[in-house]
Amino acid sequence: MIDRYLQQHRTRFLTELQQLVRFPSVSGQPVHHPDIRACADWLAKHFRQIGLTVTIHKTAGHPILEAHTPVIAGLPTVLIYGHYDVQPPEPIELWKTPPFAATVRAGKLFGRGASDNKGQFFAHVKAVETLLATQKPFPVNLTFLIEGEEEIGSGALIKFVHQHARRLRSDYVIISDTGMYGKGWPTLTYATRGIAAFELRVDGPNRDLHSGVFGGSLANPALVLAHILAGCVDAKGRITIPGFYDDVQPLTAKERRAWRALPLNDRRYAAELGVPTTAGEAGYTTLERRWARPTFEINGLTSGYQGPGGKTIVPAWASAKITCRLVPNQSPKRIDQLVVQHLRRLTPKSVRLTLDSGHYSPPFLTPTDGRGARAALAALATAFGRPPVCTREGGTIHILDNFQRQLRGEVLVVGLGQTDDNWHSPNEKMELNNFYRGIAMSVELLRRLSPAPAPAARRVLPKT
Amino acid sequence: MIDRYLQQHRTRFLTELQQLVRFPSVSGQPVHHPDIRACADWLAKHFRQIGLTVTIHKTAGHPILEAHTPVIAGLPTVLIYGHYDVQPPEPIELWKTPPFAATVRAGKLFGRGASDNKGQFFAHVKAVETLLATQKPFPVNLTFLIEGEEEIGSGALIKFVHQHARRLRSDYVIISDTGMYGKGWPTLTYATRGIAAFELRVDGPNRDLHSGVFGGSLANPALVLAHILAGCVDAKGRITIPGFYDDVQPLTAKERRAWRALPLNDRRYAAELGVPTTAGEAGYTTLERRWARPTFEINGLTSGYQGPGGKTIVPAWASAKITCRLVPNQSPKRIDQLVVQHLRRLTPKSVRLTLDSGHYSPPFLTPTDGRGARAALAALATAFGRPPVCTREGGTIHILDNFQRQLRGEVLVVGLGQTDDNWHSPNEKMELNNFYRGIAMSVELLRRLSPAPAPAARRVLPKT
Repeated sequence: MIDRYLQQHRTRFLTELQQLVRFPSVSGQPVHHPDIRACADWLAKHFRQIGLTVTIHKTAGHPILEAHTPVIAGLPTVLIYGHYDVQPPEPIELWKTPPFAATVRAGKLFGRGASDNKGQFFAHVKAVETLLATQKPFPVNLTFLIEGEEEIGSGALIKFVHQHARRLRSDYVIISDTGMYGKGWPTLTYATRGIAAFELRVDGPNRDLHSGVFGGSLANPALVLAHILAGCVDAKGRITIPGFYDDVQPLTAKERRAWRALPLNDRRYAAELGVPTTAGEAGYTTLERRWARPTFEINGLTSGYQGPGGKTIVPAWASAKITCRLVPNQSPKRIDQLVVQHLRRLTPKSVRLTLDSGHYSPPFLTPTDGRGARAALAALATAFGRPPVCTREGGTIHILDNFQRQLRGEVLVVGLGQTDDNWHSPNEKMELNNFYRGIAMSVELLRRLSPAPAPAARRVLPKT
Repeated sequence: MIDRYLQQHRTRFLTELQQLVRFPSVSGQPVHHPDIRACADWLAKHFRQIGLTVTIHKTAGHPILEAHTPVIAGLPTVLIYGHYDVQPPEPIELWKTPPFAATVRAGKLFGRGASDNKGQFFAHVKAVETLLATQKPFPVNLTFLIEGEEEIGSGALIKFVHQHARRLRSDYVIISDTGMYGKGWPTLTYATRGIAAFELRVDGPNRDLHSGVFGGSLANPALVLAHILAGCVDAKGRITIPGFYDDVQPLTAKERRAWRALPLNDRRYAAELGVPTTAGEAGYTTLERRWARPTFEINGLTSGYQGPGGKTIVPAWASAKITCRLVPNQSPKRIDQLVVQHLRRLTPKSVRLTLDSGHYSPPFLTPTDGRGARAALAALATAFGRPPVCTREGGTIHILDNFQRQLRGEVLVVGLGQTDDNWHSPNEKMELNNFYRGIAMSVELLRRLSPAPAPAARRVLPKT
């Protein structure tokens, strides 16, 4: 009955996704704020149509949509997160078809936001519609929480979740806002790295000075900065900030083994990035370095004259932007203290140091053998017909730790995107195969999260 | 008779200097190229009026003026250098009186180029006029060589001197295009530092990469750059490039003693520059560091994101502009080799290094006990009524080494500017006192360079 429904409404599901993608709901561009609002209204109406109760929460920024299935006492609570806002489409001239035309070509839906995140969360919406239409009772108590500010920092949502944490508490939180390890390779992401950002500025003379007249008699801020930065990481890629690694949870032998089995050709990887060779902390593989080891990364350097030719000055100041990626169980606050202490210690008296700590976010980690994780792995296997992989993610998804702490449930990250989906780039697309299989996966997962899940159509052993 | 002439024509000398300063002869701004030409024509006419033969040499850029006193066999040859082009006057709104109004206020002539270099070389022109009008025969065979491209690199002049070296060969070369050690303190500058410029670029990935997804698995070009730069100078300010100091001519005990006697309050110096404290190579004083020690100075740094806020990237590349100041007897070519070798050695295989060597210029040094130097010191003492000092200069005056090598004469650098003359800044000015005393100094110097110099009015012992 479920299969039949999915088959029968397949074309309409795509048509509806196209309608959704056609809203130019660019959260970062004020000219598109009416489109954001129209998109939220369309979604609210859609939720009501499929049988959910909906509230549009006004915020200081863009509205948050909260939708619920009818409450049934005793069933587990599930929250599904998504975002209806999108990145700016620029540069538009690089798109093969207009960014908001939602054109289908060769099994792909092209459009800004097709994969990030409309196509991904809408698969869950269609799964919920399918279950509402075919199953009585609905297997869980379900809440959709769909925000409109993910691309500009989720400011309103973070506040909202904090304020309504008690009410929103859920046994499970499902998020599809990431990619799969490989094309069509179902993936459960069980960890992400956290982040701590810093900006440091070394001030020397009160103006750029003639490097001939004055050079040699005062500290050169750019050179001092180079010494400070070089003093944070050694030649072997090891961070030399005392205490930095103290809280790092070591990789288990099982994880290392599992990751070594994942296909990754270091030479091809280097060639794709355009570097002569991979590099990083000695003793770790590329995946381990990306997923499970913390970093001290310079994001930008600025000092003195940067135009063509030369200018013979001792620059007045030099600055660096830095972000550290953090891994379980590092605390951003503790790392902030350690980094700040170390940078101050490395600064000579001949200059003035200004240090700003920027945004930070803790790392996220969830077990792969929890009830929810096991259900997700089974649902992924069923829907994609292939043993799923358990991976970590090197990037930071701020909201995950937030959900985990505030909503207290098991967080399940089941990405339906592919790494070649061109998020934030021209010609973004969603694989229709991932959209349809994503709907089936969501149906299966919600049923499995119910106290008495229906048996899976066929069992594929998850690969951890 | 000389004194009377100087006294009688004092007002006219200033009026003429004002006329000269009123030409907006900005060599770097095409809109002012007609003014450059007009200024050259005015000068040529002026030279003729006072009794010199003049040639205006066309060049690929701005004209070079060559003027001669009547040739008298057997007399020494003297070449006086100057430049009639000026820096741009911008920002004009910071000038108290218009930059080309040549306004006199409180004993100072304000105007772009008043001190750099019109007021300085014109003092020599007025000295030559005075001697032509009062002395028969003229004491030396004199050539003025006045260029119009000093502020844009002296390209045409360097070529011209090279081409006409044989004809221009002189026993003495006089240059007033620098400042005095202190206000009204006559100064002979006997050395300048040379320069060697480099630009290095460290290339990593073929685009800025997401620092979460990729960070840790490849070299960060900005961090590699920091390591390379930090590997060139140690924490004690000593350059660690092997062989860098090999050819440095050590300071003599006499020089060190003489410089220690010069007034320089390190604390006040640091306060003026706005630095917490002076710094530099251990074991040397501030003046020694500025005048007699080589440097490795970063002039600019560029990498990754530099705007407000943050951007979490591994930057695709990082670059640095560097200049080394060189001291006698360092060879720019040899230093270039050593620096390039060292930078290459410090570069890991995980990035690509691009190295460009820029302009370079050798250091300049001339003895302070040569015949010309002794004459200059005596003339300075006579004209300024105070024992002159012998100083070096930390900056580079490209043309000095050129003159020394090509024209083979003794190069005498007798600056008539003051450090507060605002060269290259708004409200540039020339102290009229320095202009008038400069004329008297030039008269005295030219007479002393003659085989049978007239005795000085009174003798003041030079301070070396």
